[in-house]
Amino acid sequence: MTSSTAEPIRVLVWGENRHEQIEPHVAAIYPEGMHTTIARGIAENLGDGAVINTTTLDEPEHGLTEEVLQDLDVLVWWGHAAHGEVADDVVERVHRHVLSGLGLVVLHSGHWSKIFGKLMGTTCTLRWRSEQDRELVWTVNPTHPITEGVPNPIIIDAQEMYGETFDIPAPDELIFISSFTGGEVFRSGCTFRRGHGKIFFFSPGDQDYPVYHHSDVRRVIANGVAWVKSDRPRALPTLLRYETDDFFNGHGYTGPIEAHDEEQTDALAN
Amino acid sequence: MTSSTAEPIRVLVWGENRHEQIEPHVAAIYPEGMHTTIARGIAENLGDGAVINTTTLDEPEHGLTEEVLQDLDVLVWWGHAAHGEVADDVVERVHRHVLSGLGLVVLHSGHWSKIFGKLMGTTCTLRWRSEQDRELVWTVNPTHPITEGVPNPIIIDAQEMYGETFDIPAPDELIFISSFTGGEVFRSGCTFRRGHGKIFFFSPGDQDYPVYHHSDVRRVIANGVAWVKSDRPRALPTLLRYETDDFFNGHGYTGPIEAHDEEQTDALAN
Amino acid sequence: MTSSTAEPIRVLVWGENRHEQIEPHVAAIYPEGMHTTIARGIAENLGDGAVINTTTLDEPEHGLTEEVLQDLDVLVWWGHAAHGEVADDVVERVHRHVLSGLGLVVLHSGHWSKIFGKLMGTTCTLRWRSEQDRELVWTVNPTHPITEGVPNPIIIDAQEMYGETFDIPAPDELIFISSFTGGEVFRSGCTFRRGHGKIFFFSPGDQDYPVYHHSDVRRVIANGVAWVKSDRPRALPTLLRYETDDFFNGHGYTGPIEAHDEEQTDALAN
Amino acid sequence: MTSSTAEPIRVLVWGENRHEQIEPHVAAIYPEGMHTTIARGIAENLGDGAVINTTTLDEPEHGLTEEVLQDLDVLVWWGHAAHGEVADDVVERVHRHVLSGLGLVVLHSGHWSKIFGKLMGTTCTLRWRSEQDRELVWTVNPTHPITEGVPNPIIIDAQEMYGETFDIPAPDELIFISSFTGGEVFRSGCTFRRGHGKIFFFSPGDQDYPVYHHSDVRRVIANGVAWVKSDRPRALPTLLRYETDDFFNGHGYTGPIEAHDEEQTDALAN
Repeated sequence: MTSSTAEPIRVLVWGENRHEQIEPHVAAIYPEGMHTTIARGIAENLGDGAVINTTTLDEPEHGLTEEVLQDLDVLVWWGHAAHGEVADDVVERVHRHVLSGLGLVVLHSGHWSKIFGKLMGTTCTLRWRSEQDRELVWTVNPTHPITEGVPNPIIIDAQEMYGETFDIPAPDELIFISSFTGGEVFRSGCTFRRGHGKIFFFSPGDQDYPVYHHSDVRRVIANGVAWVKSDRPRALPTLLRYETDDFFNGHGYTGPIEAHDEEQTDALAN
Repeated sequence: MTSSTAEPIRVLVWGENRHEQIEPHVAAIYPEGMHTTIARGIAENLGDGAVINTTTLDEPEHGLTEEVLQDLDVLVWWGHAAHGEVADDVVERVHRHVLSGLGLVVLHSGHWSKIFGKLMGTTCTLRWRSEQDRELVWTVNPTHPITEGVPNPIIIDAQEMYGETFDIPAPDELIFISSFTGGEVFRSGCTFRRGHGKIFFFSPGDQDYPVYHHSDVRRVIANGVAWVKSDRPRALPTLLRYETDDFFNGHGYTGPIEAHDEEQTDALAN
Repeated sequence: MTSSTAEPIRVLVWGENRHEQIEPHVAAIYPEGMHTTIARGIAENLGDGAVINTTTLDEPEHGLTEEVLQDLDVLVWWGHAAHGEVADDVVERVHRHVLSGLGLVVLHSGHWSKIFGKLMGTTCTLRWRSEQDRELVWTVNPTHPITEGVPNPIIIDAQEMYGETFDIPAPDELIFISSFTGGEVFRSGCTFRRGHGKIFFFSPGDQDYPVYHHSDVRRVIANGVAWVKSDRPRALPTLLRYETDDFFNGHGYTGPIEAHDEEQTDALAN
Repeated sequence: MTSSTAEPIRVLVWGENRHEQIEPHVAAIYPEGMHTTIARGIAENLGDGAVINTTTLDEPEHGLTEEVLQDLDVLVWWGHAAHGEVADDVVERVHRHVLSGLGLVVLHSGHWSKIFGKLMGTTCTLRWRSEQDRELVWTVNPTHPITEGVPNPIIIDAQEMYGETFDIPAPDELIFISSFTGGEVFRSGCTFRRGHGKIFFFSPGDQDYPVYHHSDVRRVIANGVAWVKSDRPRALPTLLRYETDDFFNGHGYTGPIEAHDEEQTDALAN
């Protein structure tokens, strides 16, 4: 990955950080928390090209205040056991920022997070088993920036199995397909454009296995961070009225019924 | 459209039915309500191949009870002035049915309905003007069943303008692109697969113009109804565990942390 | 599959028919030729809904004369050892018919046929091994007509391995993904729209294994035949000039330089 | 566009260069040839980030020798009146390089070039008229790098009309949709991945109008050049055999029938 004179990417790795506190075998693999390991893997690959912080569920507002999101280019999300504890108003805020241009990388069990479900519109369900399958991650889009610098396949010796049918919208770009020892397959690397935001879902990674210490997995996540970063101003798509022959000066939407129907509008507004 | 020996498609046209009551010029165009005109257009094209009912916002539960949805193959949605009045629990119910296999046709201003937004995950905003533009509806997918029997282009003499950028996910299939007198363009016919459901969005149609009396528009809507109908049993995609070498007997998901971690699970569950 | 009152689909199964003559172990599996077995599988599923013939490479013009193609709805293609023997002018003719609306189902090693390569524009290469891998065919598009009536996954006990990266354009619809005993994966069921024609590629099937006797494989091929059939008149897309405000009467293209430049046109035409 | 420390992109603009010699009104707009104007527009935007040359049809081997193509990152193609004069073996060579990773930008009437048709597999026909329509180029993929720095819409005061249905495969990414004064629409900016190569088609630009002097058009072409450039080694996708459990050492394909069938292979090879 070549260095660049551009501003470094401002990255926040969000970790649920519950397994690490409750389950000793997880703490043994990720003694500083999974979010820290994920963050180190990004730093290892992007170097001066990124400034990386971490936060967790237990922080006030889950560490995702309006101020934090405004100063951010890319949010990386790992959650699993406590998706339900993420406050709905924080999910709304993240959703609004993604549609406005915040890049989002969703990892592994984040497939069932509130924010991913809200962006996809589907159940995001799959078939599943945790029995130390070997996962092979095959490249099907060999010229995509996200596949740069990793072998085909990536070999992960022990992993949870995620299998099809994965209930997501057909991705804009299918990047990786995984197989597992048991014979299952999974669309393990997918991109989606939503509003002004770009999203990369990457399924390898689990609390029970040292997947985020795997150098190829770290490279893919870093590539994903670079890819989802927007180079446009943060702005939510907005519905505006444009007069004939004026393509550039939209003005405010004043409701579905014209002003001369004011009384009726009031009647409808209750 | 050939007749078929299959069971007729069970269709429900949902109309907001507010403009017709409040605005005399709308009532003049659609004296029995827009939903009735839309339903007649489907019947005109599908004949014995469909059984068609209508319902409106003001019915109890907006006419969309669990029983109604279970006995339905396809829901057609027209709403505009009162999207906010549609109850969230009804939207949840329709969403669950669509992901389970209920076909959905979303018309015109339904782009901003709660159900369409929830399925798309985006703002569904666009640029807009109501000044009697001519709309031309061009076919870009000439072999799709939804384009059968209509000219290229369909000419609609007077219409509201809907223009790009339309903030939706890239559609699975782009069927129609419209242009307007003012020079704007719009992806006016799009299909989406979500869960076990199929969705067709078609933008022509407005309360201020007699668009749903246009025979080509009626044909497209009827084609869309036939296309979104599922031929599979209604079932919500579900996350299940599958043991190695057993591909067909998934069993229940028991939570993110194993049973031997029961106390901790309880700790997380509050 | 419901019967229909529509005209039966006119299907031609094209078989290379060389392995069967040269290799006794192939002849033992397919004593009447692979094309015959494939045709029987389609008949078994479509019944009166299809009229099915077969032809082979060694027929005059490989059995694919202009007359034959004009009277056909769907061509099914199996070739392997003798792709190079298919005459280029026959390939041109089939290509023209597909772009005009002839449905095409390409099976297994047909990935490297001249006609498939010409339609795809890519090398259509893949990774490969013939060592009796088990193939599992997983559904990733559960509402597509081509997946109707088959289990998820289809289990094929012994098969040649075809693996990624498969050098094809991203398919319009990805229907099936296969895995193999060795851990490889493959996009094994893909649809493509090209011109007025629809194409289904399905990779299971090999001369060394009895795959075309497998009831699920037969069902998928029959579903594919039904899906690729066009319901529009056969016509090649043509470049025409349309005057302003006349959307329906295109007239002939007379070359890149206007008639008043006639001498220059002649100068260029040599 | 930020400057980069990477090696400059090696670009070759290929111009047919016939209209400019034959038609005085074209020579008046493009006195140094259209290829020169196009090259200047790229240089204006990419600066030190690109090294740009031009060549034309009348050069030996049309200026596209093996040596030239090997030393190239991106080829930009403008042709119109003399597509038929481009030698088939040169087209084969360019095709092989694109599938190996050479980036390709196809402009305007290049839709009907041999190289574009060979990569698409379709007729690439469209509807057409040259009557000084105004073209508006609307963005439908607002986060794509190719749309950076241009207004929505781009306004081109006078242009040839290209209209749907444009017979191409559904593009991997639809970037721009144009409208014309007459009301026609066109998918005017499309990306395609083929083999290891990336392709951008952009339709604005014609010999009769000064479109390649338009600063927004120049910016889009430069963005396209940057996007199609590959960051991987040039290599043609190749079919190889991989033994079980060896994912990285493919070895040569020795033909469709095993070595022990050597005599039969010889029999087939004639």
